[in-house]
Amino acid sequence: MNEGPFVQVCLSPALVDTYSVKDSVVVVIDILRATTCICAALDSGVEYIVPVQTVEECLSYRSQGYLCAAERDGKMVEGMDMGNSPESYVHPAMRGRRIAFTTTNGTQAIHAALGAKEIVVGSFSNQTVLVEWLRNQQQNVLLLCSGWKNRVNLEDTSFAGAVVDALEPDFSVNDDAAVIARSLFHEVRKSKRSYMLYSAHYERITDLNLQRDVKYSLRQDSHPVLPIYHDGKLVAL
Amino acid sequence: MNEGPFVQVCLSPALVDTYSVKDSVVVVIDILRATTCICAALDSGVEYIVPVQTVEECLSYRSQGYLCAAERDGKMVEGMDMGNSPESYVHPAMRGRRIAFTTTNGTQAIHAALGAKEIVVGSFSNQTVLVEWLRNQQQNVLLLCSGWKNRVNLEDTSFAGAVVDALEPDFSVNDDAAVIARSLFHEVRKSKRSYMLYSAHYERITDLNLQRDVKYSLRQDSHPVLPIYHDGKLVAL
Repeated sequence: MNEGPFVQVCLSPALVDTYSVKDSVVVVIDILRATTCICAALDSGVEYIVPVQTVEECLSYRSQGYLCAAERDGKMVEGMDMGNSPESYVHPAMRGRRIAFTTTNGTQAIHAALGAKEIVVGSFSNQTVLVEWLRNQQQNVLLLCSGWKNRVNLEDTSFAGAVVDALEPDFSVNDDAAVIARSLFHEVRKSKRSYMLYSAHYERITDLNLQRDVKYSLRQDSHPVLPIYHDGKLVAL
Repeated sequence: MNEGPFVQVCLSPALVDTYSVKDSVVVVIDILRATTCICAALDSGVEYIVPVQTVEECLSYRSQGYLCAAERDGKMVEGMDMGNSPESYVHPAMRGRRIAFTTTNGTQAIHAALGAKEIVVGSFSNQTVLVEWLRNQQQNVLLLCSGWKNRVNLEDTSFAGAVVDALEPDFSVNDDAAVIARSLFHEVRKSKRSYMLYSAHYERITDLNLQRDVKYSLRQDSHPVLPIYHDGKLVAL
């Protein structure tokens, strides 16, 4: 076994207490679609994103000129400026804007990670940049999957497995969940699309626009930025 | 997708609230070593096993002639008759005995399953009997992995994956965790032994007797019984 720092995978926010968050760099993962949106937004020149827990808190930022983005149960909350469709964050007018953002699972996971050495955001869209940065930190890594209402899901677990696989030469993998995620990644890397057909989440997504989001969210390295959480804000490093 | 009843996998007792226990037959899984012990004991003619949550409760049964079995943190609790080494439950003198049993993870999982349509116990040692019985019930199945102090582990997940794989022709697999468990099983079925070398649990097990327990617990169909939970007792069906 490698003697370097270790990489672990927390498959659901409900299990985060079984890991030592404070000793790790935590990567928050919510492929469908919060962390893909965050990468898209910062790559489009958004100044910063404030992740908040409630819709009310999100709306309270409007008077300060923020764009308000909120999703619950897969849908944009009424009265908001934006939901969580990644492509909607890619627009020239996004440059310099500030966003208050809340989603069913993703922003909750960021709050579950508070106290970590660093909190960064991962998605297929920034995979290579993320892996490079993690490799350079020489710190223990905890990949925190947001899941769906605390249930383990395929897309977050598979992405975590991809990161474990990439880090493995330099990191120690002594965590069972990391081995499990890696085995899922090995099975699905032949075809991202086909494994999504198994996903309970995908079955919920019959809407054509949402299917477009799924396709977008599985694309690799389309937004090569590293969102990092500092002083309550996600900024591009 | 198959139209039959569905099979789901709960990877940790901490996630059980995200499933509908009351609508399912729940299979409690704690390969190392509680559910392997339970199968071994009932296959040896033990009349019944009372799973209890605390060591104190366990000891209170001694005055009624029960054997007291308790494990905490992988070791037999001092002053008990038995720990949780599966082979120790295989003995002619076990016939007709009653056992009070508490373990770090396994008996807690049984309590987490209370309210299910039926609660049964699964391990590699009763795999074929279990799968046949589940197939005949025509009920939704929830495979509940005990894990290690709420962390997901390899051996329980892999066994759950084996059961998903076996049930798949007759059951619908629309649960992401079931797909993940199945992919782990596919990766490890080539060699049970080799995947155990990755396991964090296995690293803790440097003791030779415990390594023997691991080998014993991975053997398939050595105890072809179906432990079922009725009126606070585990009995052989």
